[in-house]
Order: sequence, then C-alpha cells, then structure tokens
Amino acid sequence: MASPGKVSLPVIKRLPKYYRSICAMAAEGREKVSSSELARLMGTTASQVRQDFNCFGGFGQQGIGYRVEVLHAELNRLLFGDGTLLPTILIGAGRLGTAVSSFIARDANGYRLIAAFDIDPALHGRQLAGVPVRPLEELAAFCAKHKPVVAVLCVPRHSAIDLAAMLPGLGIRGVWNFSHYDLSVPYPELTVENVHLGDSLMSLGYRLRNAPKDDEG
Amino acid sequence: MASPGKVSLPVIKRLPKYYRSICAMAAEGREKVSSSELARLMGTTASQVRQDFNCFGGFGQQGIGYRVEVLHAELNRLLFGDGTLLPTILIGAGRLGTAVSSFIARDANGYRLIAAFDIDPALHGRQLAGVPVRPLEELAAFCAKHKPVVAVLCVPRHSAIDLAAMLPGLGIRGVWNFSHYDLSVPYPELTVENVHLGDSLMSLGYRLRNAPKDDEG
Repeated sequence: MASPGKVSLPVIKRLPKYYRSICAMAAEGREKVSSSELARLMGTTASQVRQDFNCFGGFGQQGIGYRVEVLHAELNRLLFGDGTLLPTILIGAGRLGTAVSSFIARDANGYRLIAAFDIDPALHGRQLAGVPVRPLEELAAFCAKHKPVVAVLCVPRHSAIDLAAMLPGLGIRGVWNFSHYDLSVPYPELTVENVHLGDSLMSLGYRLRNAPKDDEG
Repeated sequence: MASPGKVSLPVIKRLPKYYRSICAMAAEGREKVSSSELARLMGTTASQVRQDFNCFGGFGQQGIGYRVEVLHAELNRLLFGDGTLLPTILIGAGRLGTAVSSFIARDANGYRLIAAFDIDPALHGRQLAGVPVRPLEELAAFCAKHKPVVAVLCVPRHSAIDLAAMLPGLGIRGVWNFSHYDLSVPYPELTVENVHLGDSLMSLGYRLRNAPKDDEG
C-alpha cells in the first residue's frame, strides 16, 4: 500500500465525499459499486476514481466493481484511524464560534471538544456545546495539562496572528481556521484546514457576475 | 483582456486571497508590489501570480512591479462588479443559519440578505440579521415578487435535495451551500459554492492521523 503521507491534497480533499457516498450505500445494504457509478455521484470520471483509490492500494479488484463493505472500512480507517477522538479546543466563542462548536459536538467527525476560550469576560463560564468558555489567559496552562492537538480559530485576523505564534509551542498540531489569516504559510509545522467564508462568498460573486449564463438579463 | 468566463475555478478561488492582500497594502498606502512578494504572502510562486493575473489581462507592467491602486481597482471590479449587491435569501434558520446570516450581513462581500426561511414554526417572525424568518411555504411567492438570485442553504441533506429541484425555477442562479448535498452535479445551471464543514474536518483529521510529522508520538 502506498504511504498515505505522500497522497496529494486534492485526493485527500475528495476522501470525505467518497466516504459520504459509501456510507449512504452501506446504509442501503448495497454490496458492490463500480468506479463509473461513484464517478457519476462525485461529478468526476471513473479514471479519476480509480487513480484516487490507487493512492491507497486500490481498495480491491476494480474489474468486478468495489465491495462497499471494504471501501467503507478502508475509508473509515483512513479518516478516523482507530476511532480515537482528537482532543480539540475552540478559540473565539462569538456567534461563529458558537455555531462551529455545536457542529463539532454534534457531528461524528472524529473530534472531541474539551474547552473553549475567549477574551470577552462576558462570555466566561458560559457553556458552549457542553464545555465552559474560559479566559484566554488560561490557554497555556490548560494546554500543558490537557494536551489538545487541534485548535479551532474563530477569531479576527489580528487575534489569529498573535495566537498562531503560540500554538505550536502549546502542542497544537492541527488548526481548523475560520480567521482571515493564512497561518500555514508562516507556520508550516501546523496542519491547517482553512474555512474562509468571506473568500467563498467572493468567489461565488465573481462567478455569478462574470460567468456567461443563458438566463443573464 | 481575456474573457473572465473562461478563467479556471482554481484561479477564481485565489482571487479573494489576492484581494485581501492588496486591500491590506492599499490601507497601508503601499504604491507597488512585486509578483514575488505577492507569491510569498500567498504561499505560491511568482510565476503562478503572473499566470493568474494574465488571465485578466495582466494588471499592468510586471517588469516594474504591479501598482497597488490598479490591482485594487481591478480586483474590486472583478469581484464586486459595479457594487450592486446580490439579493440573497437564507434557507434554514437554525444555529448554523444564524451564524451564517450574521456573516453575510456584517461582512461587505457583495450580498444583501432580504429574507430567511425555515420549516420550524417556532422560528417564524424572529429577526435574523435584520430580516424576519418566514415559513418555507412563502418561498415561491416571495421569490416571484422580490427576485433573489442567491440562496444560502443551511439545511440537512434531505431538505437540500427537495429544495434544489425548486431553486432554478424560482430564479435562483447561485447557491452558497452548507448542506451535504452536492447539488451542482444534478443542477449544472446553478453556480454553487460548497462549504462542507464536515468534509473539512475529516480532511484535517486524515492529515493529522496519516501525515508523517516529526513530533508524532
């Protein structure tokens, strides 16, 4: 099997989508699926599906279709390992942080929220998805004791700049980044997944304003 | 100038990041910037920056650096057109929808939220980022009268499947999609920007669990 460490980022980004499709098939009791059916569901080509799966050893004999049970187990192992949840903290407990915290807590995505932090004293002590909001001053001591490995950043850009410099030293290895600061550039030791909601809206706006559409008045 | 309709999606996705860098420089009163400095800020190469800008006619003479004022004006025009805001509705006024609505209303990204809809009667009449939450049954009549062009979907997958079939007929051209339904595959006439928070978390988890890291215990 190919070393997963060498798989390219676009392939990694497609894994969850494969996983969601396969979970739906497994729930329906489906036994086999072809690369062309998966391709149709993913909006891609059968060749792309086979290439993607080959990065992980191929997931079975493609000539007779993939076994749903095998795909489900293999993707599950790749995405969630042995099922151990990644201890996670949230920094920034405003409206966005609140929505994001409930998302982490509700969806079984492999994370366990163990604390939230904010600079606003009005929020301290409030419960957020089952954990209390703590003063940001407690961050270093908390990390030393409880060893979270993932930080979710729901703070403005200037706060993210200050925080990013601290995170590697606190043992944080992964960041789910909602701030407008691209911290993966200055801190390559962090594994960063950016969710730039503003960028997403701007891209959509560009495509709506500039792409030729038949129905455009 | 190249037709913007032919620009590839990866280039379009980088435009907001360029725009954010250039806005920061314009605010600092910077006059010029080189492709290599922009590349460093973006975590890419100078050659990539020049290639990207060439999709839009080049944005000026690269030999002597780009003029910040020109870049700012050109990117602003590409992303926001003449400044007309895109009339937008939100469907799904739960916790995620609430956070997302305040994001649309707060950030100047080119959209104007004109209504929110939900199936839950307990939410009807509540204010969400300055607009009332309406019953979903009013969606068709509202769209016929107020002609929104963008829908933000903050609903579960099964609701998104039902809604997606209606949207093109209601005049919706763009979807900011938070649901786990990839509606761009069955509805290619819709311009869709997906924000798959669960997929983003799963990708991050994969990279943390599988990528070789020096500090991995």
